[in-house]
Amino acid sequence: MKKNILVIPGDGIGPEVTTWGKASLEKIAEIFGHEFVFDEALMGHAAIEVTGEPLPDETLEKARKSDAILFGAIGHAKYDNDPSLKVRPEQGLLKIRKELGLFANLRPILLFDELLQASSIKPEILRGTDILFFRELTGDVYFGEKNRSEDRNTASDLMIYHRYEVERIAHKAYQAAQQRSKRLCSVDKANVLESSRLWRETVQEIAKQYPDVETEHMFIDNAAMQLIKNPKKFDVVLTANLFGDILTDEASQIAGSMGMLASASVGESTGFFEPIHGSAHDIAGKDLANPLASILSAALMLEIGFGLKDEAKLLVDTIDEVLKDGFRTHDIADQNTNRFKVLGTAEMGKLVLK
Amino acid sequence: MKKNILVIPGDGIGPEVTTWGKASLEKIAEIFGHEFVFDEALMGHAAIEVTGEPLPDETLEKARKSDAILFGAIGHAKYDNDPSLKVRPEQGLLKIRKELGLFANLRPILLFDELLQASSIKPEILRGTDILFFRELTGDVYFGEKNRSEDRNTASDLMIYHRYEVERIAHKAYQAAQQRSKRLCSVDKANVLESSRLWRETVQEIAKQYPDVETEHMFIDNAAMQLIKNPKKFDVVLTANLFGDILTDEASQIAGSMGMLASASVGESTGFFEPIHGSAHDIAGKDLANPLASILSAALMLEIGFGLKDEAKLLVDTIDEVLKDGFRTHDIADQNTNRFKVLGTAEMGKLVLK
Ligand SMILES: CC(C)[C@H](C(=O)O)[C@@H](O)C(=O)O
Ligand SMILES: CC(C)[C@H](C(=O)O)[C@@H](O)C(=O)O
Repeated sequence: MKKNILVIPGDGIGPEVTTWGKASLEKIAEIFGHEFVFDEALMGHAAIEVTGEPLPDETLEKARKSDAILFGAIGHAKYDNDPSLKVRPEQGLLKIRKELGLFANLRPILLFDELLQASSIKPEILRGTDILFFRELTGDVYFGEKNRSEDRNTASDLMIYHRYEVERIAHKAYQAAQQRSKRLCSVDKANVLESSRLWRETVQEIAKQYPDVETEHMFIDNAAMQLIKNPKKFDVVLTANLFGDILTDEASQIAGSMGMLASASVGESTGFFEPIHGSAHDIAGKDLANPLASILSAALMLEIGFGLKDEAKLLVDTIDEVLKDGFRTHDIADQNTNRFKVLGTAEMGKLVLK
Repeated sequence: MKKNILVIPGDGIGPEVTTWGKASLEKIAEIFGHEFVFDEALMGHAAIEVTGEPLPDETLEKARKSDAILFGAIGHAKYDNDPSLKVRPEQGLLKIRKELGLFANLRPILLFDELLQASSIKPEILRGTDILFFRELTGDVYFGEKNRSEDRNTASDLMIYHRYEVERIAHKAYQAAQQRSKRLCSVDKANVLESSRLWRETVQEIAKQYPDVETEHMFIDNAAMQLIKNPKKFDVVLTANLFGDILTDEASQIAGSMGMLASASVGESTGFFEPIHGSAHDIAGKDLANPLASILSAALMLEIGFGLKDEAKLLVDTIDEVLKDGFRTHDIADQNTNRFKVLGTAEMGKLVLK
């Protein structure tokens, strides 16, 4: 199989983790005899520094031409500390999602047995958890009109949904639920928000086309609680952009660490694969980041992007083995014991490749 | 001390738990020689059934005349299942918050040692946690303009903040932080939302007036994760209406159960005291609800509303004792052992009074 893959390292720990996602794809190509052709492009703060723009035209063009994109992370402390800056790294990520029509963000909460202890949640609560989030990615308050009054004293963002936006992601989520344990939980705040009422109405309609799937509707506040109280009760979770952002970060604690979770954004054409973790400026360049989420992003690219199940499985199984052998990065090591061999980013990356 | 207290039982388990909140206030009056004069009023589904309105004028009038309000819960399955209904119970709660100017919702995460085991989070992660949330309560996407297109295919809610709204709650939160461990974490989504950028800017300004308090700014997705990863790192948390709704429900798992948390809404005049839990239709009328959150709401009324510290402490200490003696309601009992004496709502209420 021949594929063109665009690598966008981005900001913070993005470059150091993406190195290993890319290397694992190269290794897979070698083992299975595929031809993966790589190109690289700028986005975020890294792109602003060079071109003045968070998403240069060149990056977007390359993205459109590629079969899949491996992305690192975005964001920089400078902008976080100064809310008045007009050009911001995150605009690049939001724009590429919109331009490529990546309306469905799939975030599987993958639980490695070896990491049950790494979570702040009790292992007996976690064991057996298997959740697949469908987060809507190109609508909601992320993309609605923003306003700031002239006197700068009033600011607003429009939380808005169109029925077709809810329908298309609902179909994807229901189809996935049919392949899994046939339960779907849709999360909204329909007791307060009109956009959530449209969301709920639409999901209720779509649900009728999937009578084999059991649907539950839950308010976001309750979901944020249930997710850690009893994560096993969830299978497919379908939700809006903002609520999905919050719930999936929270759910990363189920998997032991944000450093273990990857996501796939799909929609109209090219798929976009990235870790859930952010740019983590505080540890950037210190060889402390966990490269496994980027390698798992590569695995999602193989499976969801290219339909290469065996190739993806080899990566996941290798990570499983490395963990079983007691190797950990800092984020998933238990500080209180000497049970683990704690590795830096590069050592962990190399070990998985080997 | 003489005080007029309005009791609004509301919907679902509201009436059965509020009975015990009220009874505990009566008991306190008796012990300490205060005169609490009670009145009662309708709100939510209970009010719609009788008057057609979720917040009848009579209730609002009584509320304005009272010194404090003890509220139960709101909501009903009928409306949750039918997003198209125009008159909805929650409108009553939102309207009374707005009309009474209750802009600051204080949600202390109170940890009873005895309940460390009741949480899904590991006890060693929880021990020592002490968080006080300040949730803004009369602005945000809750109160911004709502729209539905004529063809019903587009729906929106305006997420909007004015600088003064952020300032007044920020002052309250900073003042509380000064009385506590002098750390404040402000939560927003300033990397995406303009309203959050106004929020962050404003908090940065107010922070300068409280140089003794250490301020941290955190994105909501990260906060949802950190809150369960390392709850001890938080002291005062300041956040917007929607984010506060989500985070505090999530934080209820820190306290073992939603059934243990109370909140105080304050602002321009009359204080409003209520459990964090909702109407829980599924267990309503079954004597399964936990009355402790309502009794703790009464304690908050005594402390924050009337400045009666000793009276409040007596209620909290009594609950502590009852828990130490091994008594539990269903939500906080460990299903796997026979260690606890599991009580119904009424039995638990009576026990605390005794
Ligand atoms: C960086 C930020 C804009 C982004 C988001 O909120 O979508 C991130 O948190 C994510 O979840 O991908
Ligand atoms: C019932 C609902 C409107 C309410 C809210 O979202 O504010 C509740 O969840 C709360 O937290 O008090």
